[in-house]
Formats: sequence, C-alpha cells, structure tokens
Amino acid sequence: MDETRLSLLLQTVADGSLSVENALSRLRGLPYETVGDFATLDHHRALRSGFPETIYCESKTPAQVAAIAGRLAQRSPRLLGTRASKAHFEAAAEQVADLRWHDLAHCLWLDQEPDRPRRKGVVLMCAGTSDLPVLEEAALTLDLMGHRPHKITDVGVAGLHRLFPHIPAIQQANVVVVVAGMEGALASVVGGLTNAPVIAVPTSVGYGASFGGVSALLTMLNSCTSGVAVVNIDNGYGAGHMAALINAKIEEIMR
Amino acid sequence: MDETRLSLLLQTVADGSLSVENALSRLRGLPYETVGDFATLDHHRALRSGFPETIYCESKTPAQVAAIAGRLAQRSPRLLGTRASKAHFEAAAEQVADLRWHDLAHCLWLDQEPDRPRRKGVVLMCAGTSDLPVLEEAALTLDLMGHRPHKITDVGVAGLHRLFPHIPAIQQANVVVVVAGMEGALASVVGGLTNAPVIAVPTSVGYGASFGGVSALLTMLNSCTSGVAVVNIDNGYGAGHMAALINAKIEEIMR
Amino acid sequence: MDETRLSLLLQTVADGSLSVENALSRLRGLPYETVGDFATLDHHRALRSGFPETIYCESKTPAQVAAIAGRLAQRSPRLLGTRASKAHFEAAAEQVADLRWHDLAHCLWLDQEPDRPRRKGVVLMCAGTSDLPVLEEAALTLDLMGHRPHKITDVGVAGLHRLFPHIPAIQQANVVVVVAGMEGALASVVGGLTNAPVIAVPTSVGYGASFGGVSALLTMLNSCTSGVAVVNIDNGYGAGHMAALINAKIEEIMR
Amino acid sequence: MDETRLSLLLQTVADGSLSVENALSRLRGLPYETVGDFATLDHHRALRSGFPETIYCESKTPAQVAAIAGRLAQRSPRLLGTRASKAHFEAAAEQVADLRWHDLAHCLWLDQEPDRPRRKGVVLMCAGTSDLPVLEEAALTLDLMGHRPHKITDVGVAGLHRLFPHIPAIQQANVVVVVAGMEGALASVVGGLTNAPVIAVPTSVGYGASFGGVSALLTMLNSCTSGVAVVNIDNGYGAGHMAALINAKIEEIMR
Amino acid sequence: MDETRLSLLLQTVADGSLSVENALSRLRGLPYETVGDFATLDHHRALRSGFPETIYCESKTPAQVAAIAGRLAQRSPRLLGTRASKAHFEAAAEQVADLRWHDLAHCLWLDQEPDRPRRKGVVLMCAGTSDLPVLEEAALTLDLMGHRPHKITDVGVAGLHRLFPHIPAIQQANVVVVVAGMEGALASVVGGLTNAPVIAVPTSVGYGASFGGVSALLTMLNSCTSGVAVVNIDNGYGAGHMAALINAKIEEIMR
Amino acid sequence: MDETRLSLLLQTVADGSLSVENALSRLRGLPYETVGDFATLDHHRALRSGFPETIYCESKTPAQVAAIAGRLAQRSPRLLGTRASKAHFEAAAEQVADLRWHDLAHCLWLDQEPDRPRRKGVVLMCAGTSDLPVLEEAALTLDLMGHRPHKITDVGVAGLHRLFPHIPAIQQANVVVVVAGMEGALASVVGGLTNAPVIAVPTSVGYGASFGGVSALLTMLNSCTSGVAVVNIDNGYGAGHMAALINAKIEEIMR
Amino acid sequence: MDETRLSLLLQTVADGSLSVENALSRLRGLPYETVGDFATLDHHRALRSGFPETIYCESKTPAQVAAIAGRLAQRSPRLLGTRASKAHFEAAAEQVADLRWHDLAHCLWLDQEPDRPRRKGVVLMCAGTSDLPVLEEAALTLDLMGHRPHKITDVGVAGLHRLFPHIPAIQQANVVVVVAGMEGALASVVGGLTNAPVIAVPTSVGYGASFGGVSALLTMLNSCTSGVAVVNIDNGYGAGHMAALINAKIEEIMR
Amino acid sequence: MDETRLSLLLQTVADGSLSVENALSRLRGLPYETVGDFATLDHHRALRSGFPETIYCESKTPAQVAAIAGRLAQRSPRLLGTRASKAHFEAAAEQVADLRWHDLAHCLWLDQEPDRPRRKGVVLMCAGTSDLPVLEEAALTLDLMGHRPHKITDVGVAGLHRLFPHIPAIQQANVVVVVAGMEGALASVVGGLTNAPVIAVPTSVGYGASFGGVSALLTMLNSCTSGVAVVNIDNGYGAGHMAALINAKIEEIMR
Repeated sequence: MDETRLSLLLQTVADGSLSVENALSRLRGLPYETVGDFATLDHHRALRSGFPETIYCESKTPAQVAAIAGRLAQRSPRLLGTRASKAHFEAAAEQVADLRWHDLAHCLWLDQEPDRPRRKGVVLMCAGTSDLPVLEEAALTLDLMGHRPHKITDVGVAGLHRLFPHIPAIQQANVVVVVAGMEGALASVVGGLTNAPVIAVPTSVGYGASFGGVSALLTMLNSCTSGVAVVNIDNGYGAGHMAALINAKIEEIMR
Repeated sequence: MDETRLSLLLQTVADGSLSVENALSRLRGLPYETVGDFATLDHHRALRSGFPETIYCESKTPAQVAAIAGRLAQRSPRLLGTRASKAHFEAAAEQVADLRWHDLAHCLWLDQEPDRPRRKGVVLMCAGTSDLPVLEEAALTLDLMGHRPHKITDVGVAGLHRLFPHIPAIQQANVVVVVAGMEGALASVVGGLTNAPVIAVPTSVGYGASFGGVSALLTMLNSCTSGVAVVNIDNGYGAGHMAALINAKIEEIMR
Repeated sequence: MDETRLSLLLQTVADGSLSVENALSRLRGLPYETVGDFATLDHHRALRSGFPETIYCESKTPAQVAAIAGRLAQRSPRLLGTRASKAHFEAAAEQVADLRWHDLAHCLWLDQEPDRPRRKGVVLMCAGTSDLPVLEEAALTLDLMGHRPHKITDVGVAGLHRLFPHIPAIQQANVVVVVAGMEGALASVVGGLTNAPVIAVPTSVGYGASFGGVSALLTMLNSCTSGVAVVNIDNGYGAGHMAALINAKIEEIMR
Repeated sequence: MDETRLSLLLQTVADGSLSVENALSRLRGLPYETVGDFATLDHHRALRSGFPETIYCESKTPAQVAAIAGRLAQRSPRLLGTRASKAHFEAAAEQVADLRWHDLAHCLWLDQEPDRPRRKGVVLMCAGTSDLPVLEEAALTLDLMGHRPHKITDVGVAGLHRLFPHIPAIQQANVVVVVAGMEGALASVVGGLTNAPVIAVPTSVGYGASFGGVSALLTMLNSCTSGVAVVNIDNGYGAGHMAALINAKIEEIMR
Repeated sequence: MDETRLSLLLQTVADGSLSVENALSRLRGLPYETVGDFATLDHHRALRSGFPETIYCESKTPAQVAAIAGRLAQRSPRLLGTRASKAHFEAAAEQVADLRWHDLAHCLWLDQEPDRPRRKGVVLMCAGTSDLPVLEEAALTLDLMGHRPHKITDVGVAGLHRLFPHIPAIQQANVVVVVAGMEGALASVVGGLTNAPVIAVPTSVGYGASFGGVSALLTMLNSCTSGVAVVNIDNGYGAGHMAALINAKIEEIMR
Repeated sequence: MDETRLSLLLQTVADGSLSVENALSRLRGLPYETVGDFATLDHHRALRSGFPETIYCESKTPAQVAAIAGRLAQRSPRLLGTRASKAHFEAAAEQVADLRWHDLAHCLWLDQEPDRPRRKGVVLMCAGTSDLPVLEEAALTLDLMGHRPHKITDVGVAGLHRLFPHIPAIQQANVVVVVAGMEGALASVVGGLTNAPVIAVPTSVGYGASFGGVSALLTMLNSCTSGVAVVNIDNGYGAGHMAALINAKIEEIMR
Repeated sequence: MDETRLSLLLQTVADGSLSVENALSRLRGLPYETVGDFATLDHHRALRSGFPETIYCESKTPAQVAAIAGRLAQRSPRLLGTRASKAHFEAAAEQVADLRWHDLAHCLWLDQEPDRPRRKGVVLMCAGTSDLPVLEEAALTLDLMGHRPHKITDVGVAGLHRLFPHIPAIQQANVVVVVAGMEGALASVVGGLTNAPVIAVPTSVGYGASFGGVSALLTMLNSCTSGVAVVNIDNGYGAGHMAALINAKIEEIMR
Repeated sequence: MDETRLSLLLQTVADGSLSVENALSRLRGLPYETVGDFATLDHHRALRSGFPETIYCESKTPAQVAAIAGRLAQRSPRLLGTRASKAHFEAAAEQVADLRWHDLAHCLWLDQEPDRPRRKGVVLMCAGTSDLPVLEEAALTLDLMGHRPHKITDVGVAGLHRLFPHIPAIQQANVVVVVAGMEGALASVVGGLTNAPVIAVPTSVGYGASFGGVSALLTMLNSCTSGVAVVNIDNGYGAGHMAALINAKIEEIMR
C-alpha cells in the first residue's frame, strides 16, 4: 500500500464514506503491504549513494543477465555486473546501449554520466600483479559509486622499500583497501602505518596451500594490527562498496 | 637518531666542524636508526586517537601483564587488557592504581579521565544474550577510545519484529557493529537496512556445527548485502577499534 | 502502534479533528512502529503451538538465565532451558516455583499443566546408549509442545535384527526423529523403510575422526535415501521442535 | 520366496505331502529369501506416493542411464533423472518415448499422466536468480510426486521489503522449502515468520569463502530459528522429496 | 516368531485346524518377527569368535556401563569396556566379580577362562612410547578374542635401524597392526617389507598440526605402499578386532 | 653386492688371497650395497603374489608410462596401470604387445597367462551404479593377482531388501570389499552381517557436501561395526590389493 | 631521496645557503624517501646471490609476463618464470632473446652465462616419477642460482632397498631437498639418516584423500625426525631457493 | 652383527674352520643384523652434534619419562625433555641428578658441561610476548646443541619501526628463526630483509579464527618471500634443531 492509496483511504474516512471499523480492518494488513515505504526508502538510498543494485553474473545465464540489466538500465544511469563472462556481456549489450566491458576485472558496466565529479580519500593497494583483477573490480565499483581511488600496485611485504614512498598517501587516506593473495601480510603492515580504517581483500592467488585464498583470509582475520576488517576472497566489489560507504559517510557528514 | 641529534649533526655541518662527506656517511645508516621518528609518529597517533597500545593477556603470565601494564600506565591515562583472567587483573592491580575489572568482558582497564567527552555515531548491536561478553568488549574499547556507542541487544533474526523499532537508530549511525553467533544472519539483515558501513563480529556461540564461530564467520563473509566487513571470531576489541577509527575519521574531517 | 491507538487515530480523522495530511504523516512511520502486530502474531503462535520461547543456557550466566526464566514463567505455564548446568537450574529455581531438572538431557523445565493431552504420531529413535542425552532433549521438547513420542533405543545398524521388530511403528509414524553418532547410518536405513519424513540428528559421540559429530552430520546430509533432513549436531531440541511442527500441522489440518 | 511359493509350501503341509519338520527346515532360510515381501512393500510405497525410483545421473555413463530409464519406464508412468547432461538425455530419449528435458534444472523426466491433480500446500522460495536451477529441480520433483508448489523467487535478506508481501502465503503453507546460497540467511528469517516446517537447501552460489555451499549449509544448520531442517548442498531433489512426503502425509491423514 | 512357534503353526496346518489362507496371512508378517533367527546367528558368531559385544564407555554414565556390564557378564565369560574411566570401572566392578582394570589402555575387562589357548600370527607394532595406550587397547582386544600378539615397540622411522631386527617377525606374520602418531609413516615402511596385510591405526600424538591424529590418518590413507588399510584415530580396539577376524579366518579355513 | 660376489670374496679369504682385514674393510660397506638381497626378497614376493609393481599413471606423461610399462613387461607376464587416460594406453600399447584397455576402470593391463587358476573367497560389492568404476578397478586388480571375486552391485542401504539375498555369500566370504559413495553406510551394515574382515572403499560420488568422498570416508572410519578397515577415496586398486593379500595368506597357510 | 640529493642538501647547509632548521624540516621526511638505500641493498643482494627476482606467472596474463620479463632481462643475465604456460612463454620470447622453455617444470628461463661454475653440496630427491615436475622446478632454480644438485629419483619408502645405495650421498650433503606426494614419508626417513638439514616439498600427487597435497604437507610438518622444515605444496621453486641460500651461506663463510 | 663378530667369522673362514658355504649362509641374514653399524653411525652423529635423543614428554607418563631420562643420562652429559609437566620433571629428577626445569619453555634439561663454547650465527626472533614460551624452547634446544642464539623479542609487523634497529643483526646471521602467532606475517617481512635462510615457527596464539596456529602456519607456508621454510605449530624444538644443523654444517665445512 503506497502513500497515494493510504491518502485516499484516509480521505474516505474523513468524508465519512468509510467507517472507522472498516478502515481499521484494511489497515490491519498494513505491515505486510507497505512495501512501497520500504521501496521508497531503498530508492532514497539509491539516490544518495548514486548507485543501484549490482548484478552478480556467475551462476546466471546470459539471458537472465541481459534481462536484469535491461530492466535496471531503464531506471538508472549506472550499472555494474561482476563475475561476468564475455557471453554475459554480449547478451546484455544487445539490451543496453553503451554497455562496456572491463577485461581485467571481468565486469560489464554502464555509466551515462561519466563526467560527474568523484570524491577523493580512498587508497586502493595490491601486493602483486596477480592481484590486479580484484583491485580493478574494486576500482570500477568505487568509480561507479562516485569515488576516484588512488591506486598503488605491486608493494608486497617481501620488499618493504617498495611500500615506503607511499606512506604519506596511506596516512592521509580516509579509508584504505588492501588486496593481497599468498600470505596476505600487507594488510597488517599497512594497518600499522595509518589511522585510516583498512578494508582487506584476500585473493585466491598462490601455490598449493593457499587453498584458494583461505590462507590470506585467515592472515587478515588474525591481523595483529587493529583497524583491519575483511571481506570475502576475491571480493573486490564488496571492498569497493564498503570503502565507498565509509568515504561517502564522511562527505555526507561534512556538508 | 632523533631530531635533537639530527639537528646537532646539521649544525656541525653548518659550522664546518663536520665535512659533507662524513655527514653523508653517518646519514647513510639513517633509515635503520631513525626509529625515533617512527616512535614520534606513533606517539602522535596515540595522542590523536586518545588511546595507546592494548595488552592481549591470553598466553601471557600474570607477571608479564603486570609489568607491561605498569609501564604503559606511566605514559597514558588509559589502558586496556583484553582476554584477561582474574589472576591477570590481580597481578596488574598491584602495579596500577585505580585499575578496574570488567567481569562480563573479561577485560582489565584504566581511565583516569572518565569525564572527557565521547563521540556519538556508533551503533553496537548483538543478536542474543549469549553474545553480550563480546559486545561489552567492543563497548569498553569504544569508550576508552572516546566514543559512546548506542547499544541494541537481543534482536536476532528469528523475530524480525524485535529489530524494527531500532531501524531509525541504525539508519542514522555513522558505523554499525553487529555481534552475532549461531548462524550470524543479523549482519546481512542490518546491512540491507542502512547506508552505514557495518562491522560484523562472529561469536563462538552455538550448537555443534557452529564450529567455535566458523559458521557465523562464513555467513558474514558471504553476506549477500554489500557494505559488511568482518573481524575475527569473538574479537569485540577489533570491531570496537575499527568502528572508533571510522567514527574518529568523520569527526576529524569535520573540523 | 497497536490496534487501539490506530482506531483512535482513524476516529480523529473521521470526526475531522485530524487532517488527512497529518494522519498520513503519522502513519508513514507505521511499518517500524507496528511491532505490536507482530507480537500479537507471535503470541498467537505461542498459543497455537502451546509453547513459548526456549532459553539456550550455554554461554549465559546463571543470573541471566534466572532472570529470563522468571519473566517467561509469568506469562506461560511451560518453560524449557536447554544446555543448562546445575548452576543454571539452581539460580532459576529460586525465581520459578516448581521448576524441574532433567539430569540426562541437561535441561531445566516447567510444566504447570502436566495433564493436558499429548498427540501421537512421532517416533523417536537412537542408535546407541551414548546418544540418549540428545534423544531425551528431543523427547522433553516434544512433551512440552504437546506430543508423546514413541521411543526406540539402541538399534544401531551393526545389528539390523534389533531394528526389525520396530518397522511397523516406523511405518505408521507421521514423522520419525533419528538420533545417531559415530557413522550415523541409521537415518539412511530408517528412511528406506518408511514414507514418513525423517529428521536426522547427528551426535558428537565417537572415536577420533568423528570430529565432534561432523562425520555423522555428513553421513546424514549425504543420505542415499530421500526424505531425510538434518538438524545441527547434538541438537535434540531442534529436532523435537521440527517434529512437533510437522505433527501439529497434520493435527491442525485434520480438524 | 514369494507368496505363491509360500502358499504352495503350506498346501503340501496341509495335504500331508511335506512333513512339518521339512517345512520348518525350508522356512528357516525365509528371512533372507522373502525379498518378495519387501519388494511388495516397496511397490506399495511407489503406488502410494505415486512415484518410483529416481536416477542420479552424475557419475553414470549415458548408456547406463538409458538402460535404467528404459527399465523404469516400463513399469511407471513417471520418471526423473537428476544431475543429467544433454548426453544422458539424448541416450535415454532413444529408449523412452516422450522423455523430456528441463534445461535449467538439468533433469530428464517423463510424465504420461500430466493431468492428474496436484496437491497444494508447499511454498518453494529462493533468495536469488542464481539459485533458480536448484529451485527448479525441487519444483520438478514435487510436480512428479503430485504437488503444485507456490514459487517465490528473488527475496534475499538484503532487501527484506521484497519478502513482506509473501508473508501470508508463507504462513498458510503446510511446508516451506527455502533455497539460498551465499550466506543462506533466508531460512532463518522465514522460519521466524511461520509455524510451518522449513526445509532449507544451501546452494553452491557465491564468492570465494562460500566454499561451494558450505557457508550456506553451516548457516542453515546453525539457524537460531527452530523448525528448520537441512538437506545437502544443491540438493533440490532431496528437498522436494522431503516436502512431498510431509505434504502427502497431511493429505493422507486427512482422508 | 521363533522356531517353536513356527513349528506349532505348521502343525496346525498339517492337522487341518488352520487353513492355508490363514497361515499365509500370519506368515506374511514373518520377516519382521523372525528376529530370533538373527539373534541365533549372532549368538553363533559370538561362540565362534569367542567374544561378545564390547561396551564403548565414553559418553555413557557409570551407572549405564555397570548395568550393561552386569547383563553381558551373565551370558559370557569375557567382557571388554573401552574408553573407560576409573569411575566406570568402579561402578561396574560392583556388578561384575573379578572385573579387571587396564591402566594404560583405559579399559575394563573380564576373562574367566584365562588359560584357554591363544592363536599366534598377529604382529602388533607402535612407533613411540606415546602410542602405547592405543597399542595396549589393541593387545587386550586380541587377547580376549583368543590371539596372542607379538609386540614390537618404539620403532619409529626416524631411526630405521631399530626396525631392522624385527623384519623376520614382520615377514612371517599373518597380519600386522601398526600404531603410529605424528606423521604415521611407519605403516608405509612396514607395508613395503611384508606380504602380510597391514592394519594401520593413527594416534592423536603430536605437536600442533597433527590435528588430533588427522595428519597420521591422512598419511596412512595415502600410503604409497599397497596392502595397508586404516581404522579410526586412536581406535586400538577396532584394529585389534579387525586383526583378530583375519587371523581367525585363516585358522578357521585351515581346519 | 649379490650372493655370487659375496661367495667369491669369502673364497679369496678362504684361499688366503685376501686378508681378513681387507675383507672386513670391503664388508663394512655391505649394509648399503646388499640391495641385491632386498631385491631378491622383492623378487620372491613378486613370484609368490604372482604380481609385480603397478603403474600409477595420473601425473605421469604418456611417454613416462610407456617406458615404465615396456620395462616391466619384459620381466613379468602381467601388468597394471591405474588412473590411466586413453593417451597413456595408446603410448604404452606401442611398447607392449597385447596390452589391454579397461574403459570403465580407466586402467591399462596385460595378462599373458589368462588361463591360470583364480582363487575364490573374495566378495566385492558396491552400493550404486555410479560406484562401478571403482569396483571394476578392484576387480581387475584381484583378477591380475590371481583371485576371482564374487561381484554384487547396486545394493545400497536405502533398500535393504536388495541386500538380503546376498547375505549367504557375504557370510561365506574370506574377505569382503565394500565400495560406496554418498553416505557410505553399506560398509557398516555389511560388517554387522558377517565375521569376514571388511575392506571399505569410499567413492567420490554424491551431491555437494559429499566433498569428493570425504563424507563416505568419515562414515567408514567411524563405523559402529567392528571389523571394518578403510582405504583411500576411490582407491579400488588398494582395496583389491589388500583383499588379495588376505585371501592369499589364507591359501598360503592352508597348504 | 638518494645519496646525490642528500649530498647536495648537506653542501647547502655547509655553505650556509640553507638554514639548519630548514634542512631539518626536509630531512624529517627522510625515512620514507630513502628507498634508494634499500634498493641498493637489494641490488647488492642480487649481485651476491647471482639471481634477481622471479616471475610467478600463474594469474598473470601473457602480456604482463612478457612486459616484466623484458624489463628484468635488461638488467640481469638470468631470469626465471615459474608456473608458466606455453602462452606465457611465447609472449615473453618475443621480448627476450634466447628465452628457454622447460617442459616438465613448466618454467620459462634465461641464462646468458651458462658456463659459470656451479656449487656442489645440494642433494635433490623425489619419491616417484609423478613428483618429477616439482623436482625439476627446484633443479632449475638451483641451477640458475649457481648450484648443481645431485639428483636421486624414484626412491619411495615402499621399497627401502632403493634408497640404501644413496645413503652416502645423503650423508655428505650440505642440504637435502626431499620432494614427495601421497603420504610424503620419505622426508622423515631421509631426515633420520643424515645430519644435513632437510627441506621437504609436499606434492599434490595422489588418490582422493591426499587433498591436493595436504596429506603430504601434514606428514612433513609432523615428522618425528628433527631437522626437517617444509615449504608450500608443489613449491619446487621455494625449496630450491631455500637450499641455495643455505648452500651459498656455507660457501660464503668458507671464503 | 658388529665388526668384532664379523672379523671372527672371516678368520674362521681364513683358517678353514668354517666353509665358504656356511659363512655365506650366515652372512645372508646380515642386512638385518648389522644394526650395530647403524647404531655406530648414529653414535657418531650424537658425538658430532654434541647432542643425543630428546624426550617428547606429552602423552608419556611421568614414570616412562623418568625411566627414559635415567637411561639417556648414563650415556650423555646433556638431556632435553620437551612438552613436559612439573610432574614429569619431578619424577625424572629422582633418577637424574642436577636435572633442571625451564618454567617458560616447559622443558626439563641437563647440561653437565655448561662451559663448553657455543657457536654464534643464529638469530632467534619472536613477534610478541605471548610467543616467548616457544622461543625459549628453541633457545634451550640451541644452547644444548652448542649454539648461542641472538634473541630479538616483541617486533611484530604492526609496528615496523621496532624491527628496524635489528636489521643489521638479521643480515649478518647464518640462519634466522622467526616465531610468530596470530597472522604470522613477521616471517615474510624478515625473509625480505636478509639472505640468510629463515626457519618459521607458527604459534597457537590468537583470537578465534587463528585455529590453534593454523592461520600463522598457512601464512608462513604461503610466504611471498623465498627463503622461508616452516616447522610445526609451536614446535620451538624442531626449529632450534633445524637451525643448529644448518649452523653446525657451516662450522663443520669451515674447518
């Protein structure tokens, strides 16, 4: 029951054409019907964050992805599909004009307002070249949500000197995203160098006992540095989203 | 090499009593000796966050904890020891006047400036009464770092109606900490209701296949809601610290 | 906002003392305030199933359990606390007259209407004597929810002949609960002998590689027999509750 | 030893042509030979449930599946092969006229009495589009066993408002099947909204640490909501079968 | 239905006082009633192997163990209770005269025919002193089942020379039981030296990543030597029983 | 140093052409050089068991397998390559005349004495059609080692009546091999019906949480039936080899 | 800030054109800028060990590998890319003249000084032919780092006699690398025969429950032999590198 | 058969009192009897490394430990018992005069030549105070094997500046032992700073998902730094032993 219908109901009570008893009876079912309210709320959220739902393409057929993308593109200037294959993209591109493909991040995306301003404040780092696909998924997510991350790549802990020139940037960040596979120790080291909250993303990169990223995941969860929280293995999208929420919150409060 | 010694060195160069070559030679070793600088930086961090190092008491002897606590209390008005036993507390209390014991959180703590103001903006929730010890560890951490969390308890997803009155508070928060054991689904539900970043803490509460919190941990890592990041099982301290960093960052920027 | 207040609001609209606009504004917050409705619903559920909330005592202090039990006993003639210790019971017994202790099931319980009739239709089996505590937790749960289970004990698959005399009972059941540790094969065998749905409960009984019940859990999840669903390790309460829901549903429909 | 042979034996005893002693000796072996009896029983079960054995196609060769399907189709108007490939279907279709292929569920099936009536009472839900293949496997199983499930799709907990319009249907169900991947929290939320027993099916959908469905499986096993039991990962067939048994039991008792 | 009742039934058919039809009707239920036959068979087995059921004491109360032991002792001269505590023994000793306690193996046992002959042919080895409790459980099991194992202790693979003097004994055995913790490599080495089947028992002895015996278990399952089969972690009883069955089978056939 | 060279050395000592001291010096190295002795022993073993080494083809290149097969075929009339691909077979068939391919078991094999007699006494069972490849690997192993197994297929515990006609065969066996996937309960049930030792082989057949055979493996390790020992997942070869050793031992002793 | 710039700064202080205060201010940032020092250090290390960085090719695109290889080849006569595919090699070979491909080890490599001398002292062993790819990766690593390993292959513990002729070589080694899959027992046996440190490499070779090398990994970590340390599963490169460091250290000290 | 007996045998051949044939017959058994040779070899090893066998006390009774310690103390001036309890020590101290107890390392030990010189070259580090017991076990092992480690404590990666003053010591070491719990990242960081081989020891220190050290173990196995090898969780003894072997090897070669 949306606001219009509720308003009509109240008017029929006000003008006596509906008894209080009957109105009460209709309203009794309200909590389950007032989806409109929630949806409005949700819609507000979309407006505020500048970004609607994302399509998780893996386990969906190209036809399903295309249908969902088509529907979303009608009500939003931006769109993101993660874990997509080329087949997903090609099917969706027939439904959505200007749809783009990100080869490294395996994402399909749309941005019909490419020139709106982006916020600064997010630092996005990865330990090795092999972690780049996950970093790029996070970067694309941040971009579509209105943030321009400062990227730092290939700064694994095996050569700390590569990390040092970047310490000022890390210390001035609002939030830092650290992407790392193998033993994932970079998150702990970075967390020790800054007061910014650190979002850690384990990747499934590594020799045998990395167990598809479990090793890096455990490292990050057990970080001896406080101020580190973790998202799922290879979940660049989730990390980008989390960083965007934090960065947007700061912006929002500042106004 | 601290700033005083560096200043002296430069003066001896300036007055000609030390050749450029010799000064260069001494400075070559600098990166390893300038620990003072890092410590200063660290000290600055402590001042800014209002909080020094924390003692992880588990696996330490009471005597070790007492010695560390005594040393820290000399240079800070605040102190926190997590995963402490009564024996840890009693040994430390002989070294540190006014040391306090938190029975539910199993923490020892000191605050010699109890009246300094606390920041609002952190919501701290737990799913059930059994999760209270972890929630209290987070609350104490936040308090000592200068934040006053809004606590919401016993709002498990098995009865969603208990959660609903708290939605406005959740939507106005800067950051939300969700503590939950068993299946840990509360984090996903809360994440879907707010734009605030959510820090999720799995607890080791539950029947057999909760595997000491692994079940809740996996639930939270796999949340279908974006904007959720996770800390270690039962790590109320880590969640409180992370939330404090985010909340402080907002405050800091606002100035 | 409960029904009384809603009725008053509608009347003020009907008699013109509240404008439609203002009424709309108040109702906008409704979805979050109508907790009363949900609670009513919940209350109805309690009346229907004849059973209120259960206290999971593990990880709660005796004082917490006593307080919750005291509050629940005021509005319900029946009460169940699972995973309780003697200390939990003793604290609670000071708050709740006639509270009882079940030594094998490690439960505290109250039933002030012991003579109300119980429904037939549930068969409750276990493979070995070591599984009895879990079976008794299920039996107590069923009893308090209004069902009288038919118990069959010590019928492990190592001696199939012990199972055979019970086949008629198994085939006439509305629902069968099978409790088994070690390799947990009993659920598959029973499932193959009946058209009744089988609720399987793995127990943490066994030598080394039973891994606290994981072995039996996996056996039951992988049952080659269809018509078997599984609850958590040692979760007699959950199995009893599930069986009671199914059996009550049949009764309910029959009327 | 089937009934005919047993009848003959008794007649030879009755007419004196076989001594009691010799008859006794022959009957001593009976428990192992009276497979006929069990088969009869089994046959009765098939008649009652309206559904014979199902072929689990994975790990079988197309030729094996075709042979089994051919044999089953001779004595039953209905047939189901799960986890089938197109190759399985094509081989079997040469043996079984009118065999059908379900593309989303990866099943081959036959129903030569498509118009017989179906029972109502089963609600079948899934959290996301990616869970549809498992939901469809359950739906097909239910259909072939004589039930017409009410399907609700794409109601994940990240947006609770999508779930609310369906609450009345959920509360009126005899049994609810919940299919969900990622963190699988939907089962707990649904279980808290209804008195119907809930059969939960974890799916292998999700980012890294979903571990092929283990995360959702653990969530469901550890549900803080009572009245939830779990089947194997991606096992739509098992959930459909379990729900059919419960729903049929209700029907059966009602007569 | 036991043999006496079956004989009576046949006689009433033979003398015409029961019609064939009625007899047939009674016999239809036979498969479930003829438990007596199975029990007889079972009894035969007990006589042949010289050993009745064993009590797994863990998870049973002292009172339960005492009751079971008392009942078993009435019909058998031998008795074994594994995983027993001193409390189990003391309770049982009040019911069973001459009951004995094995301190290293944590077993209670009875043998009222200590002088009956034992069979040779079983070699029983362990890698280190820490494995002795498990070896002794196996040895006691073998003794009570009528076998006298040749024991070889402390022959870990870190010092192969300690193993060499025992090679002739290993090569002449009918069956070899190898008990080993830590990395459990002894089973592979022994398997490579003999044509006798090897029963391997992993033990829960070892530093951190032995994971309570899982490491040794996996080693033994993955043995590059053929002719090795494995029982559960610390399951000396199971290994002894298996070896006794093999050794008895050889004896049995030889007659 | 083989026997011939040792004999020569002793003769040169006997005839005085080599001093005791020099002979001693040469013999000092003996323990490392007398590999010949071990090889002889090994050779004896091969003769006795009628079977040489087996090639584990997985992880080997076709060229490596072909080379090894060629070498083995020169000194033995029998040959077995497990886990082979068609490519392995084709490469090896160029080196070894009469080499054969077993399509279901994925083995390459050679038997140039197909008519030598086979021993009876081994029963080889599997629970479902999907387990056939593993059963056939065991059967081929047994055949090449000189045993003719009695095969029983498709006797899963979901329909116990299918198992019953085979009980006499199971009870007369010297050793029983049970192959089963999914929940693997068949081993426990069979173990309860016979005094013969049971070798259990878990297979990697099953829905999600079968975890590639781990579920069946744990079931079998935790069997409540004594007299069951386990080999690796899908290791039909290992089970066949173990059964052959036991059966041969019985034969050997009987002579 | 490299040495040149630091020298200039000091000179401006010395000639009075920069105040001490200003110089101090610039130097305050020094610890983060003096990366040049670390890089120099690193460069020294490369010179000393004769070997620069290695490219881990897995998870990198051919184009990325080619770019990195091209850059490295400009400043080093040697190059190694592990876990490479043919596609990686082909792309890189267009950038780097004389680049080589190692088919068994799946490595791309370059050595423009093939004749420089190699150090002795490393023994490199594997248990079976299937372990050869990992052994060859270690061998190639050692070769490029300036060591000539003594290779011993196919000496699994199932036939100890194959190991014995190699004991003198093992006892004279500076360091031994043991590569083994399946149960990985070879490391323990070798460790017991020598005073040389043993580097153990588990491989992912084996039947089902080898779990991709976890079984061998655990075996090696739990070795009852002291003097064994372990690298990651299939990590021949890591083992070769570790052995080279130890062997080089000995050489280095000897000078 | 030791050398004396072998010499006598050869003399009887030389003087004709034993025929070549009979001598050959006796020698045929030699490989199994020449344990003396191996023992001699072993004895040599003990002399060379200056250290006999160590007693792993856990899972042994105090009486067993006392007996073994007494026997070892008769033939060696040094003795080490790891994982000991006070009860182990007290029992052993009655057998061995001057036996000592190390409270932090939980070791019993004896050194009757405390003044013999120790070798330099081993650096022994730990990340936190909680790791000290494991570090001390390694230190004691090194001391008894003749090495004097340079200890560096409390240098976790959360504060890199604490590590920097120790870099020169780390770079000059022959071998470095790194002990760390929680996320165990210190090993990677240290490995990147030195050419010395690094032996990493994970400890069981940490919050929930450290899983008793598994997290640190995986971190170390997956180190992105080459030149790191790992021993078992909490295995300070193993790390000390490994480091001693490497350091001794260098010394040995230098002579």
